[in-house]
Amino acid sequence: MRQALALAEGALYVPSPNPRVGCVLVRDAKVIGAGATQRVGSHHAEVMALKDMAARGNDASGATMYITLEPCSHHGRTPPCVDAIIAARPTRVVFAHFDPNPSVAGRGMRRLREAGIVVDVGICADEALAINPGFVSRMTRALPYVWMKIAASLDGKTGLTNGVSQWITGPEARADGHHWRARSCVVLTGIGTVRADNPKMNVRHVVTARQPRRAVIDPGFEINDDAAVLSGEGAIVFTGDQNAEKAARFADRGITVVNVPEDSSAPAGQARRRIDMRAMMRWLAEHDTNEVHVEAGSGLNGALLQADCVDELLVYMAPMLLGEGLSMAQLPSLTKLEGVQRFEFTDVTRFGADVRLRARIASHWQELMQKIHLTQPGLDKAL
Amino acid sequence: MRQALALAEGALYVPSPNPRVGCVLVRDAKVIGAGATQRVGSHHAEVMALKDMAARGNDASGATMYITLEPCSHHGRTPPCVDAIIAARPTRVVFAHFDPNPSVAGRGMRRLREAGIVVDVGICADEALAINPGFVSRMTRALPYVWMKIAASLDGKTGLTNGVSQWITGPEARADGHHWRARSCVVLTGIGTVRADNPKMNVRHVVTARQPRRAVIDPGFEINDDAAVLSGEGAIVFTGDQNAEKAARFADRGITVVNVPEDSSAPAGQARRRIDMRAMMRWLAEHDTNEVHVEAGSGLNGALLQADCVDELLVYMAPMLLGEGLSMAQLPSLTKLEGVQRFEFTDVTRFGADVRLRARIASHWQELMQKIHLTQPGLDKAL
Repeated sequence: MRQALALAEGALYVPSPNPRVGCVLVRDAKVIGAGATQRVGSHHAEVMALKDMAARGNDASGATMYITLEPCSHHGRTPPCVDAIIAARPTRVVFAHFDPNPSVAGRGMRRLREAGIVVDVGICADEALAINPGFVSRMTRALPYVWMKIAASLDGKTGLTNGVSQWITGPEARADGHHWRARSCVVLTGIGTVRADNPKMNVRHVVTARQPRRAVIDPGFEINDDAAVLSGEGAIVFTGDQNAEKAARFADRGITVVNVPEDSSAPAGQARRRIDMRAMMRWLAEHDTNEVHVEAGSGLNGALLQADCVDELLVYMAPMLLGEGLSMAQLPSLTKLEGVQRFEFTDVTRFGADVRLRARIASHWQELMQKIHLTQPGLDKAL
Repeated sequence: MRQALALAEGALYVPSPNPRVGCVLVRDAKVIGAGATQRVGSHHAEVMALKDMAARGNDASGATMYITLEPCSHHGRTPPCVDAIIAARPTRVVFAHFDPNPSVAGRGMRRLREAGIVVDVGICADEALAINPGFVSRMTRALPYVWMKIAASLDGKTGLTNGVSQWITGPEARADGHHWRARSCVVLTGIGTVRADNPKMNVRHVVTARQPRRAVIDPGFEINDDAAVLSGEGAIVFTGDQNAEKAARFADRGITVVNVPEDSSAPAGQARRRIDMRAMMRWLAEHDTNEVHVEAGSGLNGALLQADCVDELLVYMAPMLLGEGLSMAQLPSLTKLEGVQRFEFTDVTRFGADVRLRARIASHWQELMQKIHLTQPGLDKAL
């Protein structure tokens, strides 16, 4: 299963909006075939592994098939993988967790068992979920999985008071940040960042065949036509303003303009208008977005956190103190620590001179874990 | 040598102001004697190890003696260790680094070599320095080694705007913080913290036979007679104000009141008066202070950093974002990132739900490393 997970990780940038899956066929403690999900519309991992097996002159009799996700049982863009597996007849299939896609959700397991193949489930489910949190989130919560990338000094400043922020963290941290952009479906920023820095928000420091879509939250639809973030394919502008003429101009360029209701719960008197962040996230999930990479300023960061639209923080911390400067997230002033949203650290890794801290909201993760286990009512019914 | 380092670490709380030293005698790959420095005035590690060897019925012939520090060659509170070693006649002595004490500084090695004992130096010097940075600093820079302990949220807030700071970090981080207090000679805080929290600043969550001295920076000599930090033995108040009557009252209670000049370089118009931090640190080094543990608010933290009086940061970070709140250190506003004091991360460790980041000033550390190597002019002369 570790090898299958590694294959799935190797496909992190590739198959969006499909999940990344790895598959390894083993007989007598030897790998006789292996594969990973290809680009959307092409083969799934199971078929790739079976093809690899055949190309090596092997067959599946007596073999165990390790897959990081339940094989699909439905006709999507490709025929069901379970048909191919049943045709190949491995002795046993082991997969990490159930496919939360309601078209599968246990049916893959049932089809295999009905065909007389031994099936075991639940090996390395947590590691497998970490490879596809967005796919599971979209299927089970109708929301993408959202991480917020922040680069800051040790005292939590993302830039100097005058806005200077290049370069607090070093090249290794920057490259890792681009790895996270590359695995996402959508890179999301705000009009404030666009105006201040005019960033491209594309993937540069790692090699990828697929660029994520770029999205800008722009309540007043103020973005300039020549903003760098709008170049490339599939840019999205989320706005609370109607401007039919500008929207039509953008549509001609392939830019999607999405009208999102304004946030009625936002505190009065705030400096900037807010759109309904949850509605925006639902729109993204409805439009095949598994993972959202947020890279924005403190205002938007705070708004997304307050709307409970963030699942994980990805904080790159440089070993310096800046004293005064820009904060990570604008949040309402608190008078006591009880009730503060607590994250949990899941990983701390050094990147060059910097440290990356990953922290996620435990309850969000547990919810996703539950959804890929048998305890889910839908799955119980399927079995 | 790893065993000797572990023995020295086991004595971290004990021998102040002596260095912590570990010593292991090995023959035929077997440990035949081991020891660590005892309380000041009692035996050094070498003598402890030789006594242990004798108690086990062994002698030193054919043995190698591993010591984390060059053995002393001078009469201090105890007779020179080299005499005891020469009397025991191990075949070889290996020590991690030279003793920066000008009374030793290579003379220990020379005495052993003159007695026909093979001597090797420099094994694990970095690890050994990490056990005694304060002793080396005091001997070579006439300054203590200073670390600043900060507990904060992920966005660098040490408390809420209203001052609430208990408990941002959890019990494991708190206990580790007390470990660092316990190994220090002096726990240093400011009058602002004393007024706000009236902390004891003693060691509680770990077991120690020795309490560090507590010191308060109090430029206006405003501290209350009943401040908790003044209880216990050996409290120190650093002040820029003369108040003979109050000073006499404190002296009667065993509290040392030290007059330090005010800092003439401090920026005008600042809210609080400042004493000369470097002068204070020199006083501490002159009074047998190896290691200083700073636990203070953002004002004092900033002043110490600006005066280049901090060698290391010890930051406990809790997985939460507070938005607004108290900052780690008040520093002058910057307009560019060039020239910012950069630390280097040396260790990242998880403590319960929190993470501890250690970051030191690389140039300070390199200076100390140089001083315990042969490149030091004084040592060259001695050899």
